[in-house]
Amino acid sequence: MGRRSSGNVPELVERARSGDARAVARLISLVEDASPLLREVMAGLVPHTGNAQVVGVTGSPGVGKSTSTSALVGELRRAGKRVGVLAVDPSSPFSGGALLGDRVRMQDHALDPEVYIRSMASRGHLGGLSWSTPQALRVLDAAGCDVVLVETVGVGQSEVDVAGLADTTLVLLAPGMGDGIQAAKAGILEIGDVYVINKADRDGADQVRRELRSMLALADRPEGSWRPPIVKTVASRGEGLDEVVAEIDRHHAWLTDSGELEARRTRRARDEIEAIAVTALRERWGDVHGRSELDGLAAAVVAAERDPYAAADELLATFTD
Amino acid sequence: MGRRSSGNVPELVERARSGDARAVARLISLVEDASPLLREVMAGLVPHTGNAQVVGVTGSPGVGKSTSTSALVGELRRAGKRVGVLAVDPSSPFSGGALLGDRVRMQDHALDPEVYIRSMASRGHLGGLSWSTPQALRVLDAAGCDVVLVETVGVGQSEVDVAGLADTTLVLLAPGMGDGIQAAKAGILEIGDVYVINKADRDGADQVRRELRSMLALADRPEGSWRPPIVKTVASRGEGLDEVVAEIDRHHAWLTDSGELEARRTRRARDEIEAIAVTALRERWGDVHGRSELDGLAAAVVAAERDPYAAADELLATFTD
Repeated sequence: MGRRSSGNVPELVERARSGDARAVARLISLVEDASPLLREVMAGLVPHTGNAQVVGVTGSPGVGKSTSTSALVGELRRAGKRVGVLAVDPSSPFSGGALLGDRVRMQDHALDPEVYIRSMASRGHLGGLSWSTPQALRVLDAAGCDVVLVETVGVGQSEVDVAGLADTTLVLLAPGMGDGIQAAKAGILEIGDVYVINKADRDGADQVRRELRSMLALADRPEGSWRPPIVKTVASRGEGLDEVVAEIDRHHAWLTDSGELEARRTRRARDEIEAIAVTALRERWGDVHGRSELDGLAAAVVAAERDPYAAADELLATFTD
Repeated sequence: MGRRSSGNVPELVERARSGDARAVARLISLVEDASPLLREVMAGLVPHTGNAQVVGVTGSPGVGKSTSTSALVGELRRAGKRVGVLAVDPSSPFSGGALLGDRVRMQDHALDPEVYIRSMASRGHLGGLSWSTPQALRVLDAAGCDVVLVETVGVGQSEVDVAGLADTTLVLLAPGMGDGIQAAKAGILEIGDVYVINKADRDGADQVRRELRSMLALADRPEGSWRPPIVKTVASRGEGLDEVVAEIDRHHAWLTDSGELEARRTRRARDEIEAIAVTALRERWGDVHGRSELDGLAAAVVAAERDPYAAADELLATFTD
């Protein structure tokens, strides 16, 4: 059984690379389920990665993220690109379920063999996106996607996490939502590489642009750094998406030339390696010497018998023994 | 210099225990600044901890958290309790600054020697509250506070984190804010031990109560578990706070009798020990063998030369060598 499953991974990787959507889906499921095969999957995928442009799409509920993502897919397909979409739901740590469903209005592209679409429930790892997200990105990258769009529900920390994952982050706003203030609050003024004002046919779009522009002007950007453009769209009618794609490409060229692309990707890999190492350690800590070392230490801290630093030292010592 | 500072810690701890507000403030500053003395501070404090009841106060902006906290302090003081207040600002990871200021309407209690009030900027550790918060709690606990109120701005993950820190979590709502829906979204239905509908003299308070009650009724609570009560208050006039205090006490008695108090505190200590240990490891990983081992591994992953699991193995191996 183990032998058979194990034997399947290289074959799955090959099928995914040749454009087999079911193999891609199966690999992402292995990632999502944290399959015991995950190590082998990652080892098989990594040699084929590094080509996909990762584009984050974020913004408050109601700005039209799903519609914009769908329109963007259409625009990228017209340019002949193979496209992946990960719709990530940073659901509460209390419910593992995905709330997306209706958000992913992707029916237009469901039958296009050059488009992979996947919803993922984030498991709330470290308070935000699960690190199954970078692993799923790796699947789509190895499967030959030129661009992977990562769309997330815009709630607080998840926006920041998406920016950490993406090469280019699109921040969507819309008129009439008090977005100016919301933007400042959620820190999205610092994460956007391209700002998109959707529903730009509505009253107040110019007002949002003015506010956003003056807020962005306050940022202290060193010489030679990227100045985020603001693009107006009406995603429901497909208007302005060509300009969004042009700005994504312009940003990608800047990233490459400035060395920032490599810096961002290295940072991302650092975080991922650390997360894997820390998880491995936590598993060991939870079950050392046949009982939970950590539980014993925690009980000693609660009983006021040991301070947490001394306890942490002991925890680390159990493991270098 | 080092000797002098070091000699001060036991003295500071003694002064804090005897009710010296300046010593308490100094200890919390050492915690906030992650002083090199932190270890010694924690070791000095721990033997004197375990008595304070920790009460989290959370809810969306506009429900009256500061006013409620202040009124609650008054009520607890009338009962003769020594009270600590930590107002925590889970600010964006991009700005270290505290946005509170105006939120802490604590002037009524500023001159009361039995009340310690402190604002803290959370540093966004693991996407939420910094672990300086549990350490500051420990200072107030050792200083003899009977109750410590931890008030936070209600934005997403921070609410959940406060629930993790507190023995008892108060969730505040108010009419006319669409809180029913917000509650479901933010997962606060799962974290409240006592629900407080503030501004209960306004239209819609009964509606909020009905909605909340029916949502709470949907939760699957095993036999013998705590059923969160709903209390109505008008904090600005001090109404209903006696009932809130009574419910906090009733919850505390339940926690103690059921063994849940010890379970919650052990979980909290576990998280704190782990966070300290992981931070220590991250520091080591960042600077092993005279260069950053982790950066080298991350670069290899980006270059598609190594998969992240193999990189994590190598990282862990460098450290057991």
